[in-house]
Amino acid sequence: MAVYTDVAADELADFLKTYDIGELLSYKGIAEGVENSNFLLHTTKGAYILTLYEKRVAVDDLPYFLGLMAHLAERGVSCPQPARNRDGAVYSSLSGRPAAIINFLEGMWPRKPNVMHCAGVGEALARMHLAGRDFPLVRKNPLSVSGWKSLFAQAADRADTVQAGLSALLSTELGHLERSWPTHLPEGVIHADLFPDNVFFLGDKLSGLIDFPFSCNDILAYDVAICLNAWCFEADHSLNVTKARAFFNAYGRARPLSDAELQALPLLARGAAIRFLLTRLVDWLNVPPGALVKPKDPLEYVRKLRFHQNVASVRDYGIGGAAA
Amino acid sequence: MAVYTDVAADELADFLKTYDIGELLSYKGIAEGVENSNFLLHTTKGAYILTLYEKRVAVDDLPYFLGLMAHLAERGVSCPQPARNRDGAVYSSLSGRPAAIINFLEGMWPRKPNVMHCAGVGEALARMHLAGRDFPLVRKNPLSVSGWKSLFAQAADRADTVQAGLSALLSTELGHLERSWPTHLPEGVIHADLFPDNVFFLGDKLSGLIDFPFSCNDILAYDVAICLNAWCFEADHSLNVTKARAFFNAYGRARPLSDAELQALPLLARGAAIRFLLTRLVDWLNVPPGALVKPKDPLEYVRKLRFHQNVASVRDYGIGGAAA
Repeated sequence: MAVYTDVAADELADFLKTYDIGELLSYKGIAEGVENSNFLLHTTKGAYILTLYEKRVAVDDLPYFLGLMAHLAERGVSCPQPARNRDGAVYSSLSGRPAAIINFLEGMWPRKPNVMHCAGVGEALARMHLAGRDFPLVRKNPLSVSGWKSLFAQAADRADTVQAGLSALLSTELGHLERSWPTHLPEGVIHADLFPDNVFFLGDKLSGLIDFPFSCNDILAYDVAICLNAWCFEADHSLNVTKARAFFNAYGRARPLSDAELQALPLLARGAAIRFLLTRLVDWLNVPPGALVKPKDPLEYVRKLRFHQNVASVRDYGIGGAAA
Repeated sequence: MAVYTDVAADELADFLKTYDIGELLSYKGIAEGVENSNFLLHTTKGAYILTLYEKRVAVDDLPYFLGLMAHLAERGVSCPQPARNRDGAVYSSLSGRPAAIINFLEGMWPRKPNVMHCAGVGEALARMHLAGRDFPLVRKNPLSVSGWKSLFAQAADRADTVQAGLSALLSTELGHLERSWPTHLPEGVIHADLFPDNVFFLGDKLSGLIDFPFSCNDILAYDVAICLNAWCFEADHSLNVTKARAFFNAYGRARPLSDAELQALPLLARGAAIRFLLTRLVDWLNVPPGALVKPKDPLEYVRKLRFHQNVASVRDYGIGGAAA
């Protein structure tokens, strides 16, 4: 929630002349994204989002993120399409920062996802995984199992100030995940952050997937596990089996999960819980004084981790038989 | 620059059903205004701004602000038009706060105003003053000469930490203004905050005046003096006489300034400088630690005040004769 960089109207109007997206009518800094400056543009041809990438995004990764959106959109996935400038590039420079323009997607993210929303995201996730199969670029996931130890190191000595015993819980769990993390499951392009605020709906109908800065190549079923955690739990941290079943069924109709993927789900879900627990914990322990943005509660993911530690089989997720 | 209140999509969609402005397609929190939560809405009928009024706006004043915009828009002033709900009201309640919807105006505010912009705002200001003549509501200006002493009291003991001698300068100037403030000049509805970020242009053509939360009844030429300070000085704090002449000429073609108004201009401009100097000084001295928003520099207005203290006649503003 921030606009870090202001842009002058004439400078932006000149920038738009390097594109074929019409004349600038207005632009507003929007309160979305915590790491970039985002503007909603109106032009004579429509609505667009302009992003200025601030320090934490590596320019080297922009061809992956933006290329992936273009690749997916061309294959029918409802996601923003990067505009190409007259040189054919999907990003260039504005106000001294890497800058890209994508088309604006109408829709609202669901503050309280219902069963229809969970089914919608399940189907869209599977279609995204299928559409990403022939994407030629590769980006390793910096926030998968090999990256968790260094995150934990940033929080280990203060984790118990958040909850007694948390440091030991994390240490034990990390050891278990490192020893047992699957290595032979289908991999491909994953979104890696498909939380409700990144999925737009018009009514109950999904209208778009947004925000790809965590996208990378990793285990496809790990992306499924991230969504299970993000969409199918209630505010009291209990799993809603009806939502989980709707999510898995919709995913499986487009891309059936193999037996090996299903059997690995509880472990992948523990990993997905650890990944968000750790980044939230590091953020929680490093809130600048006076910050306007309240960090997300890491303990929500402690409860999800404990749930998955106690799962006997995927039947606990509402999955009836061997196939989803 | 803040969104203080989030609104759920279904709650907002229900709220829009009390209006005849179409179905909700999307809404984004926008980084404008420091005291309210503002959202840019897209509906099937167009674009709108939704404002949730946070604590510092008195609900009692909303009929004045919103009624004035409706009054001016009906008389051809390019300003946002408040939407009326099915009960005919221009505001009601959403998420526990007073909420209003206005139509979205296309246009950009000029980061570096040029002579054409200054002429545009001069003409628009005069037309606003004329269109406001038959507005029936009255709101006293809380930030005119009678309100400055209490602002000064909040800053007097620490003013010298910002600039040596500032407290004495302010005390002397306030005494002078209180003794000499004019009482027989034409009054009416003034905008009272018509800075460049509140005036939109498409190219060099003015497309709208926005942001009326300081509007009130006061001396019309005082509003002219506020704009002179806000639009016609350069970054090095020198007056640009070409801009000032363009501004006054454009204003005077729509509403000629009387001799009494012209003679009072240097004094009114000193008052206009003091008003923004004082509010900026109070904000500067009360920045919360870690605040993301950098307060505006009060010393800019010390320099403008000193300029007007040394003005011999309105000829120093580029005004040639007795009539603007």
